[in-house]
Amino acid sequence: MRLNWGMIGGGDGSQIGPAHRIAAGMDGLFTFAAGALDVDPAKGRDFAQRLGVSADRAYGDWREMLAGERDRADRVDLVTVATPNSTHYEISKAFLEAGFHVLVEKPMTVSVEQAEDLVRTAKAAGRICAVNYGYTGYALVRHMRAMVARGDLGRVRLVVAEFAHGHHANAADLDNPRVRWRYDPALAGVSAQFADCGIHALHMASFVTGDEVETLSADFASCLPQRVLEDDAMVNFRFSSGTVGRLWTSSVAIGRQHGLTIQIFGETGGLRWAQEQPNQLHYMPLGGRATIIERGEGNLSPEADRASRVTVGHAEGMPEAFANVYRDLGDTILALKAGRAPDPVAGLYPKAEDGLRSIAAIHAAVASAAGKGAWVDARPPMFR
Amino acid sequence: MRLNWGMIGGGDGSQIGPAHRIAAGMDGLFTFAAGALDVDPAKGRDFAQRLGVSADRAYGDWREMLAGERDRADRVDLVTVATPNSTHYEISKAFLEAGFHVLVEKPMTVSVEQAEDLVRTAKAAGRICAVNYGYTGYALVRHMRAMVARGDLGRVRLVVAEFAHGHHANAADLDNPRVRWRYDPALAGVSAQFADCGIHALHMASFVTGDEVETLSADFASCLPQRVLEDDAMVNFRFSSGTVGRLWTSSVAIGRQHGLTIQIFGETGGLRWAQEQPNQLHYMPLGGRATIIERGEGNLSPEADRASRVTVGHAEGMPEAFANVYRDLGDTILALKAGRAPDPVAGLYPKAEDGLRSIAAIHAAVASAAGKGAWVDARPPMFR
Amino acid sequence: MRLNWGMIGGGDGSQIGPAHRIAAGMDGLFTFAAGALDVDPAKGRDFAQRLGVSADRAYGDWREMLAGERDRADRVDLVTVATPNSTHYEISKAFLEAGFHVLVEKPMTVSVEQAEDLVRTAKAAGRICAVNYGYTGYALVRHMRAMVARGDLGRVRLVVAEFAHGHHANAADLDNPRVRWRYDPALAGVSAQFADCGIHALHMASFVTGDEVETLSADFASCLPQRVLEDDAMVNFRFSSGTVGRLWTSSVAIGRQHGLTIQIFGETGGLRWAQEQPNQLHYMPLGGRATIIERGEGNLSPEADRASRVTVGHAEGMPEAFANVYRDLGDTILALKAGRAPDPVAGLYPKAEDGLRSIAAIHAAVASAAGKGAWVDARPPMFR
Amino acid sequence: MRLNWGMIGGGDGSQIGPAHRIAAGMDGLFTFAAGALDVDPAKGRDFAQRLGVSADRAYGDWREMLAGERDRADRVDLVTVATPNSTHYEISKAFLEAGFHVLVEKPMTVSVEQAEDLVRTAKAAGRICAVNYGYTGYALVRHMRAMVARGDLGRVRLVVAEFAHGHHANAADLDNPRVRWRYDPALAGVSAQFADCGIHALHMASFVTGDEVETLSADFASCLPQRVLEDDAMVNFRFSSGTVGRLWTSSVAIGRQHGLTIQIFGETGGLRWAQEQPNQLHYMPLGGRATIIERGEGNLSPEADRASRVTVGHAEGMPEAFANVYRDLGDTILALKAGRAPDPVAGLYPKAEDGLRSIAAIHAAVASAAGKGAWVDARPPMFR
Repeated sequence: MRLNWGMIGGGDGSQIGPAHRIAAGMDGLFTFAAGALDVDPAKGRDFAQRLGVSADRAYGDWREMLAGERDRADRVDLVTVATPNSTHYEISKAFLEAGFHVLVEKPMTVSVEQAEDLVRTAKAAGRICAVNYGYTGYALVRHMRAMVARGDLGRVRLVVAEFAHGHHANAADLDNPRVRWRYDPALAGVSAQFADCGIHALHMASFVTGDEVETLSADFASCLPQRVLEDDAMVNFRFSSGTVGRLWTSSVAIGRQHGLTIQIFGETGGLRWAQEQPNQLHYMPLGGRATIIERGEGNLSPEADRASRVTVGHAEGMPEAFANVYRDLGDTILALKAGRAPDPVAGLYPKAEDGLRSIAAIHAAVASAAGKGAWVDARPPMFR
Repeated sequence: MRLNWGMIGGGDGSQIGPAHRIAAGMDGLFTFAAGALDVDPAKGRDFAQRLGVSADRAYGDWREMLAGERDRADRVDLVTVATPNSTHYEISKAFLEAGFHVLVEKPMTVSVEQAEDLVRTAKAAGRICAVNYGYTGYALVRHMRAMVARGDLGRVRLVVAEFAHGHHANAADLDNPRVRWRYDPALAGVSAQFADCGIHALHMASFVTGDEVETLSADFASCLPQRVLEDDAMVNFRFSSGTVGRLWTSSVAIGRQHGLTIQIFGETGGLRWAQEQPNQLHYMPLGGRATIIERGEGNLSPEADRASRVTVGHAEGMPEAFANVYRDLGDTILALKAGRAPDPVAGLYPKAEDGLRSIAAIHAAVASAAGKGAWVDARPPMFR
Repeated sequence: MRLNWGMIGGGDGSQIGPAHRIAAGMDGLFTFAAGALDVDPAKGRDFAQRLGVSADRAYGDWREMLAGERDRADRVDLVTVATPNSTHYEISKAFLEAGFHVLVEKPMTVSVEQAEDLVRTAKAAGRICAVNYGYTGYALVRHMRAMVARGDLGRVRLVVAEFAHGHHANAADLDNPRVRWRYDPALAGVSAQFADCGIHALHMASFVTGDEVETLSADFASCLPQRVLEDDAMVNFRFSSGTVGRLWTSSVAIGRQHGLTIQIFGETGGLRWAQEQPNQLHYMPLGGRATIIERGEGNLSPEADRASRVTVGHAEGMPEAFANVYRDLGDTILALKAGRAPDPVAGLYPKAEDGLRSIAAIHAAVASAAGKGAWVDARPPMFR
Repeated sequence: MRLNWGMIGGGDGSQIGPAHRIAAGMDGLFTFAAGALDVDPAKGRDFAQRLGVSADRAYGDWREMLAGERDRADRVDLVTVATPNSTHYEISKAFLEAGFHVLVEKPMTVSVEQAEDLVRTAKAAGRICAVNYGYTGYALVRHMRAMVARGDLGRVRLVVAEFAHGHHANAADLDNPRVRWRYDPALAGVSAQFADCGIHALHMASFVTGDEVETLSADFASCLPQRVLEDDAMVNFRFSSGTVGRLWTSSVAIGRQHGLTIQIFGETGGLRWAQEQPNQLHYMPLGGRATIIERGEGNLSPEADRASRVTVGHAEGMPEAFANVYRDLGDTILALKAGRAPDPVAGLYPKAEDGLRSIAAIHAAVASAAGKGAWVDARPPMFR
């Protein structure tokens, strides 16, 4: 049985749009049934139809889509919101309240207040509000989580995360509009590199440990001094359990392409994973030797097996990771529609609570950096 | 505009079936419209419908499918043949003659004669007969081909290819039916590891150089002496141009997962690529330094750009490589249907001629190995 | 012409002793002529003689050695001090004042005051006081320094350094005397992991940039809570030029053996080097591709060429790096003895000023960590 | 107690001379006491004295050295012969017959007959004739041998060895005298790349398996067609035990620096080691995961421990590997002088028998390549 899927944003020329369509389509669970893809209504309607959406469900804007879908018997089962950040809140809230399940791009909202409200809205509506921290969809990231959860590392003592690239290192790009807006508070908000990239690493640190950031201390730098917002940041943090955290993120690290990496050190073992070579996980048991865990090998966790599609030795990539988020959502929605309890292993998609915690951590880091690295509470008020 | 796609074989529990469905579906070009998926007609019909095929196009066997699709206005535009090897020839020939485009799994046929006949059949019918050497779909494999073609390496002097794994190394598996048949001539034919894996590396060597194997000398070994067919082989060869080739393949190489690698050495540079980390290509210009080419970086070849879906630093994998074969076929078929000349860059899918050359090379290697490594002509008779 | 060399400490069973003897002996510059190798005078005399030192120069303690060597015509040209940390100051000062050149193990002294005094003492005596930050002896570390100095990276914006290992991760070692003392303030001083390992990375950051740490902020953690001193530390810092620095060090990072790595990011390029594979240096020019610089390749800097012994592709290791410090010292001392100006390229050995700055940085980090990460001045008083 | 060491050849500007002097001097076992270093007697005498050899033992040629050393009470205990290949036989024979232990550079001799004679000469004289296949001195190469010997891999089925570099790939070097002679039969003998580099890999294959090459089949190519001798070769072989061997060597593999690598596959495990990163050994037990063995880690074999000098995580390199050959020789000679049985673990240095087998294999490969890959006996007559 297939589900109907709709998308808001992700129009012609967008980078994230195709990634969502590939991910949603990969396993044949979702039919792309409706869309409001562009700020220009005509362009959006045209593009949706070129992608196979029927004319009556190729909408001019999200309000039109909400009105059009709301009362259909075959209405979309899941709406992906991939519009500009400042609109995430309003659109997601409206669809949730109308009883749709929603997957919203990160950052979920602009403010902590909005994020708390979305968490409450989803709960009240009994609907899923998922957030696209898609990198946690990699099979071996999920295996790390499973290993921690089943105690392979003992108590986790330390997590070291990175997300470093060099794509904004060129001073000649200071006036390049594709780069400039990211460092302009009027357009990007309170944080640039930490909010854009670092937060993925922070979410992953929480995901694999099953723990929550409690306090943090941040050092922000504008390595290109013309920038108002940070292009490099170091964040030290502590999880609720006391686990120590270190996170470095940079956009001026020439030579790094997409350096999302994570290391986890526990009482009885260590793990290291890097997104650029996501099919290998380095594991060292205390007193043993470094070993390489391969995606797709036998005897991995149910979480990893579920997230794999091809046999060992064949690389999977980011499209498969994103597709795992969609598959989780699809299976969960199918269960809900059938009145079955969803499979817990399908419940690893990032949730509104994760989106909220991330927004709170960004604001906390900004406050700490402004206060010369003072330690601050990183939790959203509703979880303190 | 979408195309209709059908599949023969690839039933429930098959390994290759899901890979084809993911690949065909990835870019939204093909609708899975018809199938004869299983030797058990009832199982096949049921499985097809569970995958969303309508009841009237969920066929019991390939003859029924041929009869059912032949006269439909919306008949399938492409048929994938993923049945047992010995049936490839008959099925593919029947569909080609009925005017369908065909993608057949490797090996295309069992004998050189059959393969030559399929080449002639496709030509006579004016239809595409493609063969699934899907590893040449990787963006950076295509970039290697483009680099060679545009002269970045000068004349190619030497190609060194490997496909080594260790999945058949366990003597306890000698009686495991999933392994045993592969080394039984009655079931596997004249060659085991070279025909199954080595041939991918040989095809890739031809693909990246745009050259054809002319002569070869083979040394086959059964490292587990109980095996009749080889589990390890070394093949030395010469291309038509005189380029030297070396190819090692093994199924007893414990510690290698899926060691499909290729190195190309020319007058002015060298290249090295490995399937297990397919998003990096090592390039060394003569007198320079080793450099790392990243899939998705700017200024790659049109061939590589066309074969990429996500931004640099984000891994793509085998599903995307296979999907590139389907995208090529889809774009080419769309052009043919529209009476347009297909885009040459979309013409890189492996063709019946490649399938034929591979079959001929397998038989040549078997003959050479039986003759203590005598050098033999590796070309199919029709290309001599 | 050969120089005479003497050693204090490094007796039978010591780990650092053989490393010094290999390094001093590697190039035939030094004859091991005198030693006071052990706290037990008899053992020390015996061991020295077994190592080829003549009986009259196999001393019972350093005072005896100072008295014995002071007036010899063939007295030692260089004295290595590899005794317990708390004795470095007294011994080094005595030998410097007696006109000997000295190489002292790190940490140079226990306090900033002592370190400042040694700097002044060496200057007043006109003698070399070198400190064994031997990791900066690697050919490619010196090449990084040369690249920065000649402007290959433009202005350096950011340095990220690490020294992470997992050798103290086992809780069962809390009472192991070989580990325990390191975390006991009475024996180890004010800092454990940062003073022992992190400081190498901090010195390397200064060495490659030619810049000095001005301020820092530290977060210390005892991942094994029973420890009084830190086993994990993050230090953010700023160089005098404004360059941003990040340094992580850990002794609980299971799976890391000796993770001394450094990344340097400038306006026009990035570099990455790791001690565990010291013969490759990753360099990425802005807008270009990652390239791999090989130790021993043609056209490196004079600094790197001087520090290489074998041809490209043949690994060199830590013994060669340490030997480079000795060769620098030997060549410099030979020049001084001959009344020639020493070759500036031979002047890259770490000096008393480096030792002093390191001690000041350790004390600054301890103060900052105690102050919840407050930013503090990291410079020694005499350099403010 | 120290031994006296002498050297013939390795004069000023030679590449191999410094490597021997570093290796012999590294552990303080040998005093460089005598030398005949240059074809120009005056130059040789001068250079030896500059290196610290006393005037009376700085000889003009090897005959003078033989005469001078023969009757000294403190005569050299070991003579290293590093002269042009064609002179190895005569010099080594003369010194052996005069009762000296000899270490001769590879190739040991020019012909199989000479090599057999040296084996007999050494035996008759009761003296060591060692050959400098120094790459087997790496600690982890010795550990591989120990693992095989103690059965960690079960019966060895397959060995795959490589020695590929690209230093002769430039056609502009065809007339470069430093390269040209290597491919000129009048100067280089019957084989170029296989005799120069490939033979190291072949010796290593024998060393680690403890097995001997029995038959082989070779394919030689001159990728630069102007060359008379091969610049690329593939050699298939069989060991006495039936183990399958594959060996590729090339001097036109642009991008490879010094690609000496070896893979060993047995019934119960696989190993992979590469000279460019010699401190890590990849080991995969059957049915397990790839693990990384680190030089210097605890619980390695006595063979590996003996061959290590610095702690785990600190790289060792080629100088240490060569020094292990000298240390073995030194310890063995000390035992012989003391009338003790030498420690078997010190007996891993390559011997005249290894040199002989290598010469025989080179001639066999040349014959096979000339015979279109015919399988030939690779054993020296005296071992058939």
